[in-house]
Parts: sequence; structure tokens; C-alpha cells
Amino acid sequence: MPATFRDFDALVEKRAATLVGELKDLVRLPTVSAQHSAIDETAQAVLARARRAGVDAVVESVDDGPPTIVGSTGSGARTLLVYDHYDVQPPDPLDEWETPPFEPTERDGYLYARGVSDNKGNLMARLQALELYREVFGELPLRVRVLYEGEEEIGSAHLHAFVQRYADRIRADGCIWESGYKDAAGRPTLSLGLKGIAYFQLRVRGIAKDAHSSLATILPNAAWRLVWALSTLKNARDEITVDGLMDHVRTPSRSDLALLDALPFDEAETAKLHGVRGFSRGLTGTPLKVKHFLEPTCTICGLTSGYAGEGSKTVLPAVASAKLDFRLVPDLTPELVADLLRKHLDRRGFTDVEVEPAHGELPSRWPADTEVAQAAVSALRATYGTDPVVYPLMVGSGPMAQVCDALRIPVVGFGSGNAGSANHAPNENIKVSDYLDHVRAFGRFLHTFAGRAL
Amino acid sequence: MPATFRDFDALVEKRAATLVGELKDLVRLPTVSAQHSAIDETAQAVLARARRAGVDAVVESVDDGPPTIVGSTGSGARTLLVYDHYDVQPPDPLDEWETPPFEPTERDGYLYARGVSDNKGNLMARLQALELYREVFGELPLRVRVLYEGEEEIGSAHLHAFVQRYADRIRADGCIWESGYKDAAGRPTLSLGLKGIAYFQLRVRGIAKDAHSSLATILPNAAWRLVWALSTLKNARDEITVDGLMDHVRTPSRSDLALLDALPFDEAETAKLHGVRGFSRGLTGTPLKVKHFLEPTCTICGLTSGYAGEGSKTVLPAVASAKLDFRLVPDLTPELVADLLRKHLDRRGFTDVEVEPAHGELPSRWPADTEVAQAAVSALRATYGTDPVVYPLMVGSGPMAQVCDALRIPVVGFGSGNAGSANHAPNENIKVSDYLDHVRAFGRFLHTFAGRAL
Repeated sequence: MPATFRDFDALVEKRAATLVGELKDLVRLPTVSAQHSAIDETAQAVLARARRAGVDAVVESVDDGPPTIVGSTGSGARTLLVYDHYDVQPPDPLDEWETPPFEPTERDGYLYARGVSDNKGNLMARLQALELYREVFGELPLRVRVLYEGEEEIGSAHLHAFVQRYADRIRADGCIWESGYKDAAGRPTLSLGLKGIAYFQLRVRGIAKDAHSSLATILPNAAWRLVWALSTLKNARDEITVDGLMDHVRTPSRSDLALLDALPFDEAETAKLHGVRGFSRGLTGTPLKVKHFLEPTCTICGLTSGYAGEGSKTVLPAVASAKLDFRLVPDLTPELVADLLRKHLDRRGFTDVEVEPAHGELPSRWPADTEVAQAAVSALRATYGTDPVVYPLMVGSGPMAQVCDALRIPVVGFGSGNAGSANHAPNENIKVSDYLDHVRAFGRFLHTFAGRAL
Repeated sequence: MPATFRDFDALVEKRAATLVGELKDLVRLPTVSAQHSAIDETAQAVLARARRAGVDAVVESVDDGPPTIVGSTGSGARTLLVYDHYDVQPPDPLDEWETPPFEPTERDGYLYARGVSDNKGNLMARLQALELYREVFGELPLRVRVLYEGEEEIGSAHLHAFVQRYADRIRADGCIWESGYKDAAGRPTLSLGLKGIAYFQLRVRGIAKDAHSSLATILPNAAWRLVWALSTLKNARDEITVDGLMDHVRTPSRSDLALLDALPFDEAETAKLHGVRGFSRGLTGTPLKVKHFLEPTCTICGLTSGYAGEGSKTVLPAVASAKLDFRLVPDLTPELVADLLRKHLDRRGFTDVEVEPAHGELPSRWPADTEVAQAAVSALRATYGTDPVVYPLMVGSGPMAQVCDALRIPVVGFGSGNAGSANHAPNENIKVSDYLDHVRAFGRFLHTFAGRAL
């Protein structure tokens, strides 16, 4: 009798302790790319694990970038690319962790450790799924390529060059992106892209050094210059007013609206969580979702000038600075936003406001009817017994365009996280059963993306 | 032969070491009111010194305020009030002092110590002048009252009540205020008042706690609310746009303009010092001086929101705050500005911007032709051999109105400081010869204010 996914699931269950144990071993490594910690050690561990799963993986790097792992296994008409990263965010603030970030700990069915959700969990689960698939079904029905990078959490500075240099080892018919999670209601989700980001440091100097505020009569104040400049970028109706920026934002299509209409979004719960009584512009329903998923942002992430201590200090600040984050939807790019912002400020006389681009990623958005998306929907439906919630764009960002847009690889994201996984935050976690479900889902996805019926 | 000021000057010169030695003893006491340090000890030392100078001084206090010294000596048709304070600013940052702040040190003719200029030097010099005047001329030709407070550097919170309660011991025909200095060109200066101040802490909360900046699509951003609110308070032409505020500012009179016209103001040097190429609105000459001395300010002294560290953090800040300092000219008051500011913000929908008054002082301005001002001009001319530079208002602030406006006592300020005295800053200093000159000038002022010719 030919093997089925009942056999696959049974094997996942039988091996559960081993599968979770391997993940624990991986998250014990403190692979904090921002601190250049344990990078080589983790790359070697991942390389060895990928090879054990039958992937002919090698480590490459470009331009003194960190080790990046590429490899391939299996054969068939279709090729799937698996993108993950083995680095993690810094664990700070340490004192808010209930258990140490690099000592994986199970509590009430959840596994806590830095990187367990973002993204070592999915990296390991997918390798394990490959291995178990072979064990149950024999050979893989498709070619699977892996791309594991080691600096996603610090901006993937070398990924573009890497993808250009090693394009022939990365090309595929579809890609599964690093992340994915169950929503707050426990529904599996699928994402069809990511927003981009353009992060800027703004800085104004008015006078040579801080002066007594009695001189504010005649000397320029950097803080005022900054406030005036910023106030021209977005208005109190929450409309971005950077000249020309909104002209580059696509109007939602009928299918966009249908997708968003079907998307669950718990307004009451979200409002409660953030302590607000309503949302931007008083929006609700589909228009609120359009704004959240398909509109860009212009966010002051930080403001700094003058005296920040207790009480009063009568100082005229010499410098003022702001951190500004634009989330990008198609067809905005970091370069375009930088150019529009500079011209907008210059046109209004704010040539004294320095704008330094700090970090940029392109948006990447793919249709819902690609083969990889259809295969993912089938696999998730079979795994979870329900259709996944489909997000047109994740509202976060990442180097998706550097890989998938560059090589024209349609992409989806689904994974083992949950709505409270606390990526980038203390007490990062996944539910152990969600982890095993992702192994099961990824096994099915290999099957469906290869064109086989479940 | 009757005594003259040649005799007085000769005695000052003879006693110079003793006079300066007494000041050194006083500034050795670390009377930092912000830290409640050495307050009682200093009050007792000042009380004893005043008594030795013949003042029937006593210590009083109101409402648990610090010890305040009042007393009187001499008799005559006129009464002079001497206002000084015996507390000093904190010495921080300590590592910028060339010699320890409470170890008075002479270098190149200057005496360095915290409080030597602001204001223990003038306090001591004036007591010494009283004593030497009696030694040279016999009895004082007028009544001199002293008022020495111990919390000027932290806002004089109890002075208003003190002045109300002890008005009968404070009333006078003229007052000499604590401070005064030679300008950068070495000319003696005389001031006819002080600007007031209204200092506010502004605070906005948007959401319950910091959120990921991807949620900026739909959640309010406290930093934007603050920027929008601030941007309505002053425009890029440096005009205060708080509704109605400028209606309370007097138009400069002909005599104001004449006074300012005659006032030296080294634009090139000031521009160089602060690293600017020009001043507010491109002003120069008398209009620049009008703006500096007779117009109010609205100054952002501090801006704080979100992430202030290196690099980028994609955070939607929950709170944002600003410190805002208005320098007040007649007829603005802290209460009026607080009221106008609140109404201005509310009218524009910024009811979410909390405004907390932190510190307030009234402006106080007196004519140039009062008896006390005329007597001071004569005394300074005789001491320095040149007419003093007359400032209509000092651009700093202090509790002058609490004393002089409350009891209708015309007031002037002159003293022993210099343009680089560094009040409130590291390496506070006076020139030793300026100190002795202030003793000589104050002796002459006792004479001229009593109606005697020099």
C-alpha cells in the first residue's frame, strides 16, 4: 500500500521529541548578528544539519559578508526555494525574559528562546520535513533549494550581491519565505508579500553648541527647524504630504478589496490591546484594512533634542534629530522616497535638515493565484482542516525583493509562529504543537507544489 | 578735612586681601539649594557677617521655606533694599572645572568658584562696602535693608509669601538687585529689569505602550501629535503664533528705541561665538536689539520620543514630550501664557496634549529716570570713569517682580561679574579687581542714593 500523509503525521508524532530537541540545540546558539556572535558556529551547525537532510549544501559568501548557505536536493519538474535566516535579534532587554533567551525552555506547551519563531524554528522544521518526506515517500518529487543567510536581522547588506553572483543556484519556480504564523483566533495564515521600508535619520544643527535659552530671541533653534520640517511631511488627518509620494501608491483593485473583505481583523481586540478607542481617520471595516495593508506609512520613530531630564533646563539646543520610518507598498522604493523627501524639504527651504538613509528594503507583492500560493493553500487546508487567512502583504519588511523580485520567483510565507510569538521581543516563543504542525504542513506543501494531489 | 572717596578707595585697597578672603570663606560653603546642601550653615554665616557689618539681621522663614535673612541698618530720608541670595547652582558637570568648584582659586587675576559671581560675590561686597563706608564717613546717610534668600536657584517658591508677610521690613525707596557685570568690551552695565519666564512640560500619549512601527497605518503616533501641536505655536518666520499672545506685548516707545539705539551689541562677535551667519529674520541694528530685549520667546528646550540610540529601531512611540520655555516681557505673565497656550491647543483639537506649568516668573521693568537708576548711573560713572551701558531688561529672569513690583520698589542691577563669568556653568569666576570695584561702586551708590553729591 502506498504511503500517505497519515504515515507522515504518525512519523512526526513518533519523532516529536527528537524534532523539538534539534530545534533546542539550534536556538542554544546565541547567533546575534548585530553583535557578530556565534555566526560561524551556527553556519557550520546549519550546514551539517542540511547535509544530513540530504541537501548538497555549501557555504559561500560575497564581499566579506557572513557565511551564506546554498544547496539543493531532490529532482523533478518544479524547483522550490526555501529562504530562511540563521541569525537572530539581540535578546535585550534581558531582565524581561522569564527564562534565559539562549536556554530553550518549555512551559505550558510553548517553547521559549530567542530565534525559536524568527526564524530558526521554520528553518529546522522545513529541513526535518524534507527528511521525513523521504523516509515516508521515498524520493522528493521536486527539486528543493535552500538559501540560509546570516544577517537578515541587520539588513541583509550582502544578499543582493549574493543573489546576483549565485543566481543559478537560487532560481526556482516558487519560494517559501521565512515567516508565518497563526493569527489571534488560531487560524493559519498565508502571506503573498511584504511591505518595504525606508528608514532615515534626520538631523539639524542650528548653532555651534547649546546656548542659554534667553538667546532664543535672535539665534536659530534646531528643534524648531526640525518640528517645522516634520510638520510638512504628514498632516493631522494622517495623510502623507511628501510631494508626489502618494502618486506612486496603487489604487486597490477589485481583487484586493475582495481579499481584504474576507480577511478577519478584530478591531475591538486591536483597539483594546493598544489602548485606543478608534483608528486612523475613524476608519473601520475594509477601508481600515486597505489602509493597514495597502498604504504606506510615515512614522516618527524617535525625536531627540536638548534637555530630556527631570524638571526644567533653560537651554537653546544646538542640534535636533528624528528617526523616520516609511513602510512601502508597491510601487514605492527606498530610493524614490529618499529623493522625494529631499526635494520636498529643499523646496520648502529646509536645506539645513540633513537626511541620511539608514536602512531600505523594497516591497514585494505577488498574486494569490500563483502555483506556489495555490499549493500552499491546499497544503494548509489539508494540515489544519480550514482555509488559511490570506494576507496580501505582511506589514513588516524583509529582503524578499532582493531574492524573489530579482529572480522573478513567486513567493508565499507560512510558518510555525503565533500571534503572541514576540519576535524581536523578550520571551519569544512558539507553541510546540504549531512547530510540529509546520513540519506536517511543509511536508504536504512539498507534495502539492510538486503537482501531486493530497 | 572731611573724608572723601579717595579715602574710601584707599581703605578698599588696603583691606583687599581681607575682603577677598572673606568672599573665599563664603564660597567654600557648598550651598546648593537643589541638593539642600549647607543651607542652614550658610544662612548662619551670612547672618553673622551681616551683624558684624552692623545690620540688625534675623532669620525668618515661611511655610517651611528655607531661612531668609532680613535686617536693617542706618537711618536717613531714603531706604535702600539690597536683594541677594546665598544659594548657588549645582556645580555639575564637575569634570569640566579646572579647579574644584568649592575650593576658591585665584588664577591670572580671576577668582574661580561656584557662586563667586552668582551671587555670593555681590552679597559679600555690598556688606563690606557698608562697613567700610561707616569706617570712612561715620554713620550711613540712609537706611539700608537687606533681603537674602536661600532658594533663588530653584525658583524662589516661598519668596512671594515671605514678601507679603514681612513687607514692613522690606519696603524701600529703591532696590539693588543681585546681579550685574561688565560687558565683553569691559564697560560697566546697569539693568532696569528682567524678563519673566513661563516653562512648560508638554506630553502626549497615543497608545498604551510602544508598538511595532508597522502598526503606524492605523494607530495614533504621539510624536506626530506633538510635532503638529508644536508647529502651530511658532512659524518659520520666528513669529509666535499662540493665539493672542503677541497682543500683550508692548510696542517699543521712543525712549525704548533711544535706549536700544545707544546700547552696544557686537553682532559679528555674537554670530561668531554661536557659529551663525545671521540672526532671526535677518535682523540687524536696533530692530535686532528690540527683538532681543523687548520681545518674548517660545523655545523648544527639549524634545523626547521613541528611540534615541544608534542606528534604527522601527518603533511606534507611545509617548512624546517637549519642554517649552517662554521668556516674558511686559505685560505677559506665566498665568496668561498658560491660559493662552491651553486655549490655543484646545481650539485646534490638541486636547490630548497635556501642558504642565513647571516654573514661572513675572517680568519686571522700570524706567531709566527713577532716583535709584540715576543714583546708580552717577555712582558707576564715578567709579569706572565712564557711563554705564544701560539694559532695559536683562534677558534672563528672577524673582524681581515678587519683591519690587509687589512692593512698588524701583530697582536696578549692577555688580562684579564679567561677560565670561560663566554663571550656572563650570569655572564660574569674577575678576578680583572687578570685585573690589564693586565694593567701591556700592560705597558711592550708598552716597548718591542718599542724595549726596560725589
